[in-house]
Amino acid sequence: MLLSVLQANAVVLDVEANLWTIDDAAKRAADAGADLLLTPELFPVGYAPLRVRAELDPAKLPAIRERLADIARRNRIGMVYSLPAEADGYNSGGSPDWYISATLIDATGAELLTYAKVHLFGGEERQAFVAAAQPPAVVDFHGIRTSLLICYDIEFPEAARAAAGRGAELLLVPTALSAGYDAVPQVLIRARALESQLNVAYANHCGAEDVYEFGGGSVVAGPDGGLLAQAGDTPALLFAETGPEAVRAARDKVPYLRERRPGLYREWEENLPREAGDSGDSEA
Amino acid sequence: MLLSVLQANAVVLDVEANLWTIDDAAKRAADAGADLLLTPELFPVGYAPLRVRAELDPAKLPAIRERLADIARRNRIGMVYSLPAEADGYNSGGSPDWYISATLIDATGAELLTYAKVHLFGGEERQAFVAAAQPPAVVDFHGIRTSLLICYDIEFPEAARAAAGRGAELLLVPTALSAGYDAVPQVLIRARALESQLNVAYANHCGAEDVYEFGGGSVVAGPDGGLLAQAGDTPALLFAETGPEAVRAARDKVPYLRERRPGLYREWEENLPREAGDSGDSEA
Repeated sequence: MLLSVLQANAVVLDVEANLWTIDDAAKRAADAGADLLLTPELFPVGYAPLRVRAELDPAKLPAIRERLADIARRNRIGMVYSLPAEADGYNSGGSPDWYISATLIDATGAELLTYAKVHLFGGEERQAFVAAAQPPAVVDFHGIRTSLLICYDIEFPEAARAAAGRGAELLLVPTALSAGYDAVPQVLIRARALESQLNVAYANHCGAEDVYEFGGGSVVAGPDGGLLAQAGDTPALLFAETGPEAVRAARDKVPYLRERRPGLYREWEENLPREAGDSGDSEA
Repeated sequence: MLLSVLQANAVVLDVEANLWTIDDAAKRAADAGADLLLTPELFPVGYAPLRVRAELDPAKLPAIRERLADIARRNRIGMVYSLPAEADGYNSGGSPDWYISATLIDATGAELLTYAKVHLFGGEERQAFVAAAQPPAVVDFHGIRTSLLICYDIEFPEAARAAAGRGAELLLVPTALSAGYDAVPQVLIRARALESQLNVAYANHCGAEDVYEFGGGSVVAGPDGGLLAQAGDTPALLFAETGPEAVRAARDKVPYLRERRPGLYREWEENLPREAGDSGDSEA
């Protein structure tokens, strides 16, 4: 399965411009034989949580989704896109809460998988969105068991483990990572791929959007922890072959997933001493 | 706290030669002002699970421990050493099972902390040793909350999380990593330090021992995922300053440990679909 990864600069709330960027990338990716195009977090609306929440009319979301499905259909390529999505609850103003979501569609535009971000990053995301609670699900895409996470999620090994435990061989991760955090793609993404023995593709923005400066550095990591493709800090379209063979070979060589001891980990977590200063929930 | 890390070649079952190597390193480390010397997995007896199990008389272990305590005392330096240790159970021949253990002693030779390896690697380790089940404990050492893991343990993010959850700011890891696995120190150790926001020191063998060829590559990683020190593939004595300040700064910058969602992870793990092909215990 030939995967392509779009790294680009979105224009905040200029949906037409952003869809044009995606359409152009989809055409180039399909021309190169790619089966799938992964795009960055919230790319069609731009990454600007407070402005998007304040200024985007949610009634327009279904039409944006239809436009994205049409891009997939016209270019005959699968796609992962990320948009706000309405949640079940309501905020203090009586409006529906929003998740940050990601959606995998096939080359006919049909939805195969959706995911809502579980780990929100920073105060502005928390003001604009609510965190979801469902684990990443897995679907077969071109013979590869495929799953989704979003941005900060993948920095937590537990999130990738949840996908791997459900059989994922490929994790597709739209992101919006600020400049200056190169260790995330260069260390954490490679580690997630190696320790959970799957391919991880990580598609970032580059350049300025609203008050944010994005560093690019999009990558595709293989299950041996190596990089199959990586971008600099400017717009790029990456390609990587991500079949299940490398996943199986890695899992045969060092069986991390089989040699985990989940019963022990659960017991250890339940028996955390209360006095531990930095033990997470104790400070929450 | 100035930490030193010994990377060296042990001689299998030549305890005198190996203690000489440790004593020499302890002297050099103490002369350089180090407070602690970390040594590789099973270094005093050499890394050779089957030969060590078959040929080492366990009645000699207390005297080896006393010699190591004496090295610490004479050189006025704390030390982490790794040795076989008797477990509670018995093997099919009626002999006590052995763990692979690690021990932290202070500069007076007093034991501060012990740990027994939870994740055994490969068939020979499993023939010679049994896997332990206790989580890593934490003690204060020169003002730093310090914990121990051994080799394969640290490749599992869950093991480092267990130490971090108990307050660890410094993880000391004796290892015996075969040549050809450079991604372990270069990717996984850096990721453990970054995602659980602590210092990780990883002390490996180099050269041949029994049938094994070790690649060296010992490292000290900081809580920003950067390397504070790294060795090549030949004998080395590394030094790194590992105070708690960098840990606190990292935890203030991106609060991974506070923003984990352990309740969700537990729920996700309990609700793993049975049909997931590579979900770990289902194949065990």
